[in-house]
Amino acid sequence: MRIINMDHVGASPLLPEVVDAMLPFLKEEYGNPSSMHSLGETVTDAMDEAREHVARLINAKETEIVFTSGGTESNNWALKGVVHASRAKGNHVITSSIEHFSIMHAAKALETQGIDVTRLPVDKYGVVDPQEVEKAITSKTVLISVMHANNEIGTIQPIADIGRIAREKGIPFHTDAVATTGVIPVDVQDLNVDLLSLAANPFYGPHGVGALYVRKGTKISPLIDGGIQEGGMRAGTENVLGIIGMGKAAEIAVGEVESRMSHLIPLRDRLMKELPGTIEEVALVGHPTMRLPGNVSVLVKYVEGESMLLFLDMEGVKIASGSACISRSLKVSHVMLAMGIDAGSAQGSLLFTMGKDNTHEDIADVLRILPPIVQRLRDMSPLYKKTSKQKLAV
Amino acid sequence: MRIINMDHVGASPLLPEVVDAMLPFLKEEYGNPSSMHSLGETVTDAMDEAREHVARLINAKETEIVFTSGGTESNNWALKGVVHASRAKGNHVITSSIEHFSIMHAAKALETQGIDVTRLPVDKYGVVDPQEVEKAITSKTVLISVMHANNEIGTIQPIADIGRIAREKGIPFHTDAVATTGVIPVDVQDLNVDLLSLAANPFYGPHGVGALYVRKGTKISPLIDGGIQEGGMRAGTENVLGIIGMGKAAEIAVGEVESRMSHLIPLRDRLMKELPGTIEEVALVGHPTMRLPGNVSVLVKYVEGESMLLFLDMEGVKIASGSACISRSLKVSHVMLAMGIDAGSAQGSLLFTMGKDNTHEDIADVLRILPPIVQRLRDMSPLYKKTSKQKLAV
Repeated sequence: MRIINMDHVGASPLLPEVVDAMLPFLKEEYGNPSSMHSLGETVTDAMDEAREHVARLINAKETEIVFTSGGTESNNWALKGVVHASRAKGNHVITSSIEHFSIMHAAKALETQGIDVTRLPVDKYGVVDPQEVEKAITSKTVLISVMHANNEIGTIQPIADIGRIAREKGIPFHTDAVATTGVIPVDVQDLNVDLLSLAANPFYGPHGVGALYVRKGTKISPLIDGGIQEGGMRAGTENVLGIIGMGKAAEIAVGEVESRMSHLIPLRDRLMKELPGTIEEVALVGHPTMRLPGNVSVLVKYVEGESMLLFLDMEGVKIASGSACISRSLKVSHVMLAMGIDAGSAQGSLLFTMGKDNTHEDIADVLRILPPIVQRLRDMSPLYKKTSKQKLAV
Repeated sequence: MRIINMDHVGASPLLPEVVDAMLPFLKEEYGNPSSMHSLGETVTDAMDEAREHVARLINAKETEIVFTSGGTESNNWALKGVVHASRAKGNHVITSSIEHFSIMHAAKALETQGIDVTRLPVDKYGVVDPQEVEKAITSKTVLISVMHANNEIGTIQPIADIGRIAREKGIPFHTDAVATTGVIPVDVQDLNVDLLSLAANPFYGPHGVGALYVRKGTKISPLIDGGIQEGGMRAGTENVLGIIGMGKAAEIAVGEVESRMSHLIPLRDRLMKELPGTIEEVALVGHPTMRLPGNVSVLVKYVEGESMLLFLDMEGVKIASGSACISRSLKVSHVMLAMGIDAGSAQGSLLFTMGKDNTHEDIADVLRILPPIVQRLRDMSPLYKKTSKQKLAV
């Protein structure tokens, strides 16, 4: 059976060049970058190079890149670290209602410690209004955190505009750019951000490794205290293998972001355009144009996303329903609820996240395989039958 | 030039079986364990298996093992997580004066948040007295954390005795067992611990991956909030590659811990016995018998550890001075100061940490290579010259 991976938010395969770059560090080069002898030297040099490539990918300085165990740690650290370092200044954080769980739950943890959190609403496309950010700022605000794009809905936020407001008010601004870094152009100068979370897998690096960009001069306490690694900002012997992989993936992404986008946008637009023609009562989620290049998020009425996903899996089509983190929790997405989508409709979520190897043939296959699955599930749905009968009666 | 790695605390090479186990997850098996489709299944199964092996290594249940980015994260989480979950109960933590930086600095961070920290003294061998632990306990004590062994001095602590006291008083007990897990028998039941930190590299797994054992019923808040990974206790898409490697390394360690010990102890004892015969004024650091099997820690008078280390490096001998974390910070070890060693003597620290591939030939080479290096450095040392002259004058 031909496997069609349209769940790149769940997992993207490593580039062969990334695997090749990692192999020596799996075998002969096992040194510790903190060692004073020559066994650590090759590793230190390779890590320096990786840091340069990651910095270049987002137009930052190497000294502003701190390696972490992934986007979730970066997000936790940005929120908790900046808030902790600013307790003397204030106790108010502004974020949005469509953030990743790692921001949402970190904000909840901060609330138990006496921090006030404002969660900004979004419009029907899932867009945060920069004016709302400005209105929410108080004299106690110590951090604004709005994500660059949420994979679940695909919408890209007006980060540069929010950043301009934050800078005018002198408030540190963080963006969770896990879904965008290496996927669309991400430039910390253009975006006016002081902190930016990224992870390696979305640009074909390994899972479990990421970074936090911390603009020079930004006050932040460590989340993980200890040794002097990462300039004393993030302790712990480094995940050398992961960092080397991320570095190589970043190096390649610098040259390929544009061509990957031009490859993906026509695929995305075709799927968005043709799905409603093959299945009735399908609604697109998120913004029609301000969206991630490989992202198609839809709601299929009268059926459950989980069921469609399992039937598609049997046919070799791998997709997600809601975010990867949500999928196994079987809860309705807070992101969709924030967009005004009712809980019933949100259950019918299907999320296609395409990558550089997806083709028009994949799109054609999905358009052929999905409709009979939906029909079969709808035929079993009491809600659908009732509605169909009403339609026939009309 | 023949390379002699006697810096296993800095870095141990991965076992070939560990590399082989990891390779498929670097290439074809790139799935996300949180996915609902079959691309994640192999990964989920492999992670379950890895968790079983790690649990077996320390005689715990699989459900009590939470994967982390390494020993430093585990230590930070144990301290901050238990303290945070116990704020209603008390604000006092007991630890020792010879802990790893990740415990020491996490404790310092807690002090800035109003937590009282007692740091227990040690005797001249670096041993924590369980009676001192008992005396330090107050009605406000919410956690005791004493490390199983510190690589810098090699001494193994009476953890089971401390654990018995903690259990009698109903206080959660954590041990940092990064230096011991997979190196000597570690059994969470025998040790009477509620939380235990471990890392993969000391038993020939990859860097940047570890675990925290959390006994069922122990109250702990997450350090890294977010998705539902690791039973909601540690969010973030897992470092699959690292976890698979750690699992295989744990599986092998279960069967090999005893034979690795019987191989290392004679090497250790020979080096400890013969070094003072080849170099005058060398002092052994730590306990003579209650010590890690591959660990020889000495102080060489009138010379700097860093200088010896660099000269040894040129001859192919890789060792450390103080802990890996300390080496690049060029500070005097707090561990040695706590043992009553003066700052001057501590500068002459040499730390040999042997592994399963070291041989008697390695020992013979070190005994041949080190003395002339020491003599050369002493000949340049004004302090040594002065002392030698005094001796001659006597």
